[in-house]
Amino acid sequence: MSIIEAVPNFSEGRRPEVIQALVTAIQAPGVLLLDHSSDADHNRTVITVAGPPEAVVEGLFRVTALAARTINLFEHRGEHPRLGATDVVPLVPITGITLEACVALAQQLGARIGAELGLPVYLYAAAATRPERKRLPDIRRGEFEELVKTINQPERTPDFGPASVGPAGAVVVGARPFLVAYNIYLQTAAVELAKAIAKQIRESSGGLPAVQARGFLVEGQAQVSMNLLDTELTPLHVVFDVVGQLAAAHGVAIDRSELVGLTPTRVMLAAAAHYLKLGAMPDAATVEGAMRQASDVAG
Amino acid sequence: MSIIEAVPNFSEGRRPEVIQALVTAIQAPGVLLLDHSSDADHNRTVITVAGPPEAVVEGLFRVTALAARTINLFEHRGEHPRLGATDVVPLVPITGITLEACVALAQQLGARIGAELGLPVYLYAAAATRPERKRLPDIRRGEFEELVKTINQPERTPDFGPASVGPAGAVVVGARPFLVAYNIYLQTAAVELAKAIAKQIRESSGGLPAVQARGFLVEGQAQVSMNLLDTELTPLHVVFDVVGQLAAAHGVAIDRSELVGLTPTRVMLAAAAHYLKLGAMPDAATVEGAMRQASDVAG
Repeated sequence: MSIIEAVPNFSEGRRPEVIQALVTAIQAPGVLLLDHSSDADHNRTVITVAGPPEAVVEGLFRVTALAARTINLFEHRGEHPRLGATDVVPLVPITGITLEACVALAQQLGARIGAELGLPVYLYAAAATRPERKRLPDIRRGEFEELVKTINQPERTPDFGPASVGPAGAVVVGARPFLVAYNIYLQTAAVELAKAIAKQIRESSGGLPAVQARGFLVEGQAQVSMNLLDTELTPLHVVFDVVGQLAAAHGVAIDRSELVGLTPTRVMLAAAAHYLKLGAMPDAATVEGAMRQASDVAG
Repeated sequence: MSIIEAVPNFSEGRRPEVIQALVTAIQAPGVLLLDHSSDADHNRTVITVAGPPEAVVEGLFRVTALAARTINLFEHRGEHPRLGATDVVPLVPITGITLEACVALAQQLGARIGAELGLPVYLYAAAATRPERKRLPDIRRGEFEELVKTINQPERTPDFGPASVGPAGAVVVGARPFLVAYNIYLQTAAVELAKAIAKQIRESSGGLPAVQARGFLVEGQAQVSMNLLDTELTPLHVVFDVVGQLAAAHGVAIDRSELVGLTPTRVMLAAAAHYLKLGAMPDAATVEGAMRQASDVAG
């Protein structure tokens, strides 16, 4: 059984009855709700669901339809940048499915939102159709208020749906790898070391691919705080080992590390295989993975 | 969703049509066939299935009924010791279920086989009702031919079913932890080192709890070959680290390790958590594990 995750963001973080309706609507048969959180200042809700691809896409369509009926961007105020009622919908491969297949799902969902709900849709990240639509901040520049005036310009032509903006705004749909939020604590209070290591490892200053990193002091302990944007490119255990080596060069050891939120099993299997010198450790070599594969064969 | 595995052994390894019928019968709704293998010299078939506890127990009952109708121990010849048509049925906890709960399932299955099929049933391993019934070789002493004559003796009274033996013989049902077959290859051709390490780590000579180990020369490379009988007692990564330390004391490094067959995800999660200094890494911290828990709540 293939599993994808979706983490749609909605421009509503204040009205509990609307938030509850969104959380209910997304749970089409087969869709499992993993998490949801709302922020009143951002006036925004993030919902995390997972399940078989078809089920998740159906749930996303239903919740997008509901959000379009219940959220009015002309009246929406909040700190977080946004373009629409359903603001951004990332599809994420978890197991038994590729990023490319998630791009196809994003296209399918975007086409349906455009055709059946009459909303402008932009594809982003791995699903982007233009280089300048890869990054969310680029697509969201000027936010809803600017898009209302500029959607007729060629560079703003939606990938699906009409080149006109109503109260529900536009929806940004895409596919990206799983994002792992990962922190490593050093056995020192010297935050400068955490900051120096963060600078050495982050991609933006020439470090490891698909790694964002910053140094903090957390409860008296130096912490390297990271987002791993693509653990196929840079596995988590590589990050652990590199940070360990850089710290050791200053005579400092790693105290512990922590994962923030859920992590795909394959990230942990890859780490175990690395340290145990197992070579590859595919999901299908676990009992649970073999069961997922067997249930595919069984239908 | 809880998952158990079962690895029943049948006294038939020669008649393809009977073997195929057994493989079909065990697949009650929800039961997934993971593996099966037959050996003509042993005249024996081993089937591996997994699934929700109730489904697996139902499949085991059905296949035991079929084996009792189609296998005649009075005519059975083979190298492997055996007591019955369905010879031994181990139930193994995989995820979301304890060994104790598997003991209760073994009792339930044994009681049903005794009552509905009229076969004598012995409980073994964690489900044993007497210390001398813990180990299979003790229960199987003298095999079917001896049991026919001795089942009336008090020490052979079955845990369930009649104290009389028909053509289907007796069934041994029990619960045990998952067995991990695990090999470590050393960067040396000196098999003496593998043998010495095996002797140091195996429980029978005072080593690690629940570890069986032998040393071999495999394609010119020293190999420590192990069965890990309870990875809660002695985790796989502890075995890897101890073998690594003992080899290093002789100036030899570990070349690689290998898992034989499927491994429960939690064994790999525990290893990853250990090397990454994550503290605990429960199954529920993975996306897949959280999904299993969410599907329990959802019904």
